[in-house]
Amino acid sequence: MGLVVQKFGGTSVGDADRIRAVADHVARTRRQGDDVVVVVSAMGKSTDELLRLAGDVASQAPPREMDMLLTAGERISMSLLCMALSEVGIKAASFTGSQAGIITDTDHTRAKIIDVRPERLKDAIADGIVPVVAGFQGVSTEKDVTTLGRGGSDVTAVALAAALGADVCEIYTDVTGVFSADPRVVPEARRLSRVSFEEMLEMASTGGRVLMLRSVEFARNHHVPLHVRSSFTWEPGTWVVEEEPSMEQAIVSAVTHDVTEAKITVVGVPDRPGIAARLFRALADRGVNVDMIVQNISADGSTDISFTVPRSDVGVAQDVAAALQDDLGFQMVKTDSSIARVSVIGAGMKSYPGVTATMFETLAREDINIEMISTSSIRISCVVDESEVEQAMRALHAAFELGG
Amino acid sequence: MGLVVQKFGGTSVGDADRIRAVADHVARTRRQGDDVVVVVSAMGKSTDELLRLAGDVASQAPPREMDMLLTAGERISMSLLCMALSEVGIKAASFTGSQAGIITDTDHTRAKIIDVRPERLKDAIADGIVPVVAGFQGVSTEKDVTTLGRGGSDVTAVALAAALGADVCEIYTDVTGVFSADPRVVPEARRLSRVSFEEMLEMASTGGRVLMLRSVEFARNHHVPLHVRSSFTWEPGTWVVEEEPSMEQAIVSAVTHDVTEAKITVVGVPDRPGIAARLFRALADRGVNVDMIVQNISADGSTDISFTVPRSDVGVAQDVAAALQDDLGFQMVKTDSSIARVSVIGAGMKSYPGVTATMFETLAREDINIEMISTSSIRISCVVDESEVEQAMRALHAAFELGG
Repeated sequence: MGLVVQKFGGTSVGDADRIRAVADHVARTRRQGDDVVVVVSAMGKSTDELLRLAGDVASQAPPREMDMLLTAGERISMSLLCMALSEVGIKAASFTGSQAGIITDTDHTRAKIIDVRPERLKDAIADGIVPVVAGFQGVSTEKDVTTLGRGGSDVTAVALAAALGADVCEIYTDVTGVFSADPRVVPEARRLSRVSFEEMLEMASTGGRVLMLRSVEFARNHHVPLHVRSSFTWEPGTWVVEEEPSMEQAIVSAVTHDVTEAKITVVGVPDRPGIAARLFRALADRGVNVDMIVQNISADGSTDISFTVPRSDVGVAQDVAAALQDDLGFQMVKTDSSIARVSVIGAGMKSYPGVTATMFETLAREDINIEMISTSSIRISCVVDESEVEQAMRALHAAFELGG
Repeated sequence: MGLVVQKFGGTSVGDADRIRAVADHVARTRRQGDDVVVVVSAMGKSTDELLRLAGDVASQAPPREMDMLLTAGERISMSLLCMALSEVGIKAASFTGSQAGIITDTDHTRAKIIDVRPERLKDAIADGIVPVVAGFQGVSTEKDVTTLGRGGSDVTAVALAAALGADVCEIYTDVTGVFSADPRVVPEARRLSRVSFEEMLEMASTGGRVLMLRSVEFARNHHVPLHVRSSFTWEPGTWVVEEEPSMEQAIVSAVTHDVTEAKITVVGVPDRPGIAARLFRALADRGVNVDMIVQNISADGSTDISFTVPRSDVGVAQDVAAALQDDLGFQMVKTDSSIARVSVIGAGMKSYPGVTATMFETLAREDINIEMISTSSIRISCVVDESEVEQAMRALHAAFELGG
């Protein structure tokens, strides 16, 4: 008999039928002998509706009140799920983030968990009750209601799994697991049965949309095995686990892509120490999230610095760079919002230096120009033109023989 | 500078426009120099929508989960109102029932307030912040979320007004005050500018729908002046206050009516002690809420007992009576669901014994038969046929010269 944390996202509890289906699944798990703790998101589109209401009453909502508003969403889904569980004979009780002991800092709308005190959940489990916990929310050290920002429900689930010593944290979603590439782009992509935390982190940070970086990091740091699976088919999905020496590793596990970034190039920067530092400090001060950075070596004493930022930050980044032009003495700023990043990821590539060469050869054979390159020990990313990214993905997926 | 508690019902915060109008009104009150504490209900039809969802997932919802579900409603309205207040330059912060210190017993879906600990509200007021409190909800001694049942938001407002020593508790609703009769039935009914708690209690318990009995009782017990007024016209409404010796009293203030009850008559009851006690104990044990009781004196050693119950309880009441038939030895049970109660209420009638005679004469002149009579020191109620109640109201309203 073990302890399983099951987290259900918004589409999994999108309407009354889906909630009853989730209740049936939780009941089945429970009757197999495991203790279960459930974490739920708000129902489907309900968060969007609340945001629309907020927009109707105010042009700018105080963050504390936005958190109070949005936390109504999980309150509804979790109490409905408890009712559905009761209906199928399972004792259940709902708990808000506060009641579940999710203690956060005071950074409203994107709070961080600083402590988990799940005493009430432990008592409930000991009494044979399935706790159903509101994801995405907590209570601050000032006793105000907070939300955890994007991907927050997954973080709640992982944090509770860690605090309760759960055997696994199951993340139920609308896809059947983690794939070797986005199946909408690469039809022969196959579901991975097992990936390491490190691979999952690289996937999450290069365009994989199944899990947010933050919950994977939390799971890795607290050694919580994740099982990503579908609440529509209920079939086994992808396990995200610690890399074991004995683990048979594919050289490359997956190809990911990201079309949300833009490239900014600062042209003709004097090749003096400290220039790059001042530029990126200024960007950081304005909250611009810089991802890849490449500096080209120059022969004539000047250099070009290229970097990528979210497309929504292009305007701010341009302003920041322009304001520094006289001071830093560069020639001009160029932006390109039609780029894409394609990455190959694999824990096995550490010991196979040929992967980089294969990637470049494959793109060259497709006549796809590489604009920027960045690597880690288990990932190679290339920036290409957005119009060529799908062709690049399919070619790389085939070249590394990732198909089913 | 005083302290005003302003309570806004569901129609007063029914949509974004209404919420912004409420924010303007609160801002106006605040700028006049008063401290304000706001109590809100859930938006318009939102509670009905949540109940429909509950019905969709389960045939019978656990009360604890029903409370968790329904309290989402005020969470939404109160945070939206805070956003709207912020938009017009008023500092505001929302507080759940629990955060506002509304401590209740553990009787889910109809909890009673057992303590009010408004420390956080006091701190907010001292900081120049308008607290916006969720009506209808509290936290139990077991730290579970509870709701206060019908009329609960009014009770929250009155309880906070009492605990904070407010100068007045303003109840904003969709009518402009308390009227001398229901204006839909009696067009010449006029708004009362002032009624005593005792009169308001009698009105609430005989069909007046503006305030629930429970909140009036709470206000009277804690000496909280109430001001019932409209959130659509914002004009002054009706003050509900303690009766003062100097108060110029109308002999009769209002005519009320109630068409929600049914009459049950137990015919041919042996005239022995203890029979009525056993009947009404049995009814109480089944939770039947008996209102008026009349026992007719008999000449032949048997008697008839008539009583009224809510129409929804007629079936249960019949069953209870039928089960006792052999035991108590009465002849039969008759029911009549097409009755109505019409009442005249007035603090002044205590010293005018002629009121009863005027009432009976008026009904006789209209050829309306009186089926049952019950009186208190400031009220006379008659049960008549439902088809004649509106005629009775108009005649009584004219006879006691209550028109504008």
